Amino acid sequence: MSASAPRKALNIDNINPHVKAAEYAVRGELAVRSEEYRAKLARGEGKDLPFDSVIAANIGNPQQLDQKPITFFRQVASLLENPLLLEHEDILIKSLGYKSDVIERARWLLKEVKSIGAYSQSQGAPGIRESVAKFIERRDGYSANVKDIYLSTGASSGVNTLLHIICAKPETGILVPIPQYPLYTASLSVLDARCVPYLLEESSGWGTDLQAIHDSYEKAISEGTDVKAIVVINPGNPTGSSLSLEDIKSVLKFAAEKGLVVLADEVYQTNVFIGEFISFKKALRDLQKESPGQYDHVELASLHSVSKGMVGECGHRGGYFELVGIDPKVAEQVYKFISIQLCPPVIGQCIVELMVNPPKEGEPSHELYKQEYDGIFGDLKKRAYALFDAFKQMEGVECQTPAGSMYLFPTITLPAKAIEQAKKEGRKPDEFYCSRLLDATGVCVVAGSGFGQKEGTLHFRTTFLAPGTEWTGRIVKFHKEFFEEFR
Amino acid sequence: MSASAPRKALNIDNINPHVKAAEYAVRGELAVRSEEYRAKLARGEGKDLPFDSVIAANIGNPQQLDQKPITFFRQVASLLENPLLLEHEDILIKSLGYKSDVIERARWLLKEVKSIGAYSQSQGAPGIRESVAKFIERRDGYSANVKDIYLSTGASSGVNTLLHIICAKPETGILVPIPQYPLYTASLSVLDARCVPYLLEESSGWGTDLQAIHDSYEKAISEGTDVKAIVVINPGNPTGSSLSLEDIKSVLKFAAEKGLVVLADEVYQTNVFIGEFISFKKALRDLQKESPGQYDHVELASLHSVSKGMVGECGHRGGYFELVGIDPKVAEQVYKFISIQLCPPVIGQCIVELMVNPPKEGEPSHELYKQEYDGIFGDLKKRAYALFDAFKQMEGVECQTPAGSMYLFPTITLPAKAIEQAKKEGRKPDEFYCSRLLDATGVCVVAGSGFGQKEGTLHFRTTFLAPGTEWTGRIVKFHKEFFEEFR
Repeated sequence: MSASAPRKALNIDNINPHVKAAEYAVRGELAVRSEEYRAKLARGEGKDLPFDSVIAANIGNPQQLDQKPITFFRQVASLLENPLLLEHEDILIKSLGYKSDVIERARWLLKEVKSIGAYSQSQGAPGIRESVAKFIERRDGYSANVKDIYLSTGASSGVNTLLHIICAKPETGILVPIPQYPLYTASLSVLDARCVPYLLEESSGWGTDLQAIHDSYEKAISEGTDVKAIVVINPGNPTGSSLSLEDIKSVLKFAAEKGLVVLADEVYQTNVFIGEFISFKKALRDLQKESPGQYDHVELASLHSVSKGMVGECGHRGGYFELVGIDPKVAEQVYKFISIQLCPPVIGQCIVELMVNPPKEGEPSHELYKQEYDGIFGDLKKRAYALFDAFKQMEGVECQTPAGSMYLFPTITLPAKAIEQAKKEGRKPDEFYCSRLLDATGVCVVAGSGFGQKEGTLHFRTTFLAPGTEWTGRIVKFHKEFFEEFR
Repeated sequence: MSASAPRKALNIDNINPHVKAAEYAVRGELAVRSEEYRAKLARGEGKDLPFDSVIAANIGNPQQLDQKPITFFRQVASLLENPLLLEHEDILIKSLGYKSDVIERARWLLKEVKSIGAYSQSQGAPGIRESVAKFIERRDGYSANVKDIYLSTGASSGVNTLLHIICAKPETGILVPIPQYPLYTASLSVLDARCVPYLLEESSGWGTDLQAIHDSYEKAISEGTDVKAIVVINPGNPTGSSLSLEDIKSVLKFAAEKGLVVLADEVYQTNVFIGEFISFKKALRDLQKESPGQYDHVELASLHSVSKGMVGECGHRGGYFELVGIDPKVAEQVYKFISIQLCPPVIGQCIVELMVNPPKEGEPSHELYKQEYDGIFGDLKKRAYALFDAFKQMEGVECQTPAGSMYLFPTITLPAKAIEQAKKEGRKPDEFYCSRLLDATGVCVVAGSGFGQKEGTLHFRTTFLAPGTEWTGRIVKFHKEFFEEFR
């Protein structure tokens, strides 16, 4: 062996090219730099920075931005972590503010999982899946079966599972909305399958455009792509949209006609500001009732999570998906696949249970729960509209009315000089804008190119989770100065 | 559209063939059947069953089998789940038995993660990774860097990450010990890469056999396999072995010579009954010190977990891996890959911190911690040897002396008639034996074929986690009757 070190066995030129090809901007370069700024400020070394705090508006992470957890959830969770506390009911109730339903729920969950330190069934604890099924029944007015519910490590791992099952070969294609949450394109890259993009219609609140879906599908088929599924994110990420029943039904009809599996990413189902949320499952059952026999073959997987909504328990990595109309032999393979990773975090499973089965009216914890839930909802809505109003006043910025999810996704029309400067620096124009925004204000957003956007358009995605309006002011001021600099 | 339902878009013949090809016996058919028995007994309907309880000896799941969690860990976790409890220090200490170090640790962890409901950095919270680095330094006597530590969702997700990075093409091969924990073969199937099996040496306590590794490597190379890495599981799963320093060094030398990444699965590092655990990291640093320049290029990833040891917190899905000597550009891709799934469960990360940084001597919680830890260790060792003694008395059963991990993996020599009967039923002989064992006793073990075994030999894997010895008696009785039936 020579004394000079040979090239590493693993190097950038010989590792998995499909991993290399994946892009995930939500936690990309800007996110990393914003963390460096945050650490610098925390060390008291940020005197040279033109801001005194970092605002992580790049990711839907409510509790990072001071959203308080729902008390009922966390009281139950504390008892699950330390069941010995249940030997002190009196103290819990009289001195620590725990209500009797907190204690009952903890006892019931412990009976179901035995210990949150034990692996559960790979599909999730049966009692918890039962609660999820009942929740879906109440939500949709149609039955749900515990055997079709799969608990997951956040919705992300559910998406990963479903795409692993579906993507059979490099020609397999999945219709993905553009703009999209980059989990989809990144996972398809890793799986060496094809993303078949279909454009959402910005001018109509980022709704689905059946003609666009149809054209993308036909184009893909003509190129030899075996299109197997269509992803819909409703309410929309990054778009902030909320789909109409008509849009949902037209996607289902298209899927029925072409034999596509529908992947309904419904993690923002309680973040709806305009109209009401309608699940793909309900819309499918409606169609099946209206046209007997016509839609029985439709295959649907719908995903939910504890990370979003008023729950905001991202760090607990809880979620589930429901399989509808899936061949039992395929479901067996889903089970086997998830079993390789043993089981989702059990305390996360318990948070799923609490989310789908919160205190009911008349129960001791209900009043506080409702007050907290409504408070968070109201705050989010208020901030969404405050940000929307700020965008309306900004030169070259247009934004659809906030309808759902945790994001706004405005169009930005940048001055030609800025686009030139971006080119000089080897950056996409929207990334250039977002990078400058971060350096000037400490506000971290994600460039539209990280989600995909119609050619020739530029956007960025921002959450409206950060409290107060001071940070909105920073954006407005930066934007004005940016335009002055590059006009 | 015709009224009769067309074949499903997803069916067993067109889904991902690599997922279909994966096998994961630990949670396979027998595990599913044992869960059905358990549910039946729970419903009070098991009168026809020849047993009154199910013993899940198929999986290392200590808290499912009544192992109590370590009090310190769970007290801290309860405060992380409900930080409002920290407003009642007096009650915690005077009435609920919490010590001051529990409260301090909870406050510190909350400062590090802000809220366990928030996503952390994808690599894990920096302060927790710092604790892991310090633990490795104490354990090995060599430095460790916080930037090389990656927290994970149990060790399984760490393995998944590393194999995703390494497996670049269908010709990529990974040397995997036989018998092995089937996570490796299952993941390689899913990734469409090649498992290059090397046999462990049963007669020398399941140690590594350098000649066997060498021969497997050469054979794979001659078949066009691009061998990139070698997996070692130490202490052994399913074998119950504990590798000698000599074995470890010879693997490292081989890896250095051939340019292989070493994947050291060290999740059972505290489950050692004979000798002491030596990490691959320490052995590598020793080699580097002994022969300057000769081993600087070696690439190593070592994995650990909160699921095993005396911690046994499987359900919390916490773990980490350390990268040693990995090209920084490759590490960047590791970071990007894990960022797609956002972050490991944050409470699981906190349990990792508690595992690597337990109460020190002189601290208030130390005495109870030590008592619980030593108690669990002693019980496990006692049960391992009790089971070993039972095996020694069973006809046709031979077992290596328990040295580490949570398993025994005895050889069984079955009567010819039993092998014939298995063939008639279309089963492998060891699966036939294990299936009969489950149906007769409620004890669920895993057939050796689920882990791989030398041709012509038969084994099964059992944990020794279940309390008491009554269940061992069930195995002994069944075995005797089985041999009488088929003699």
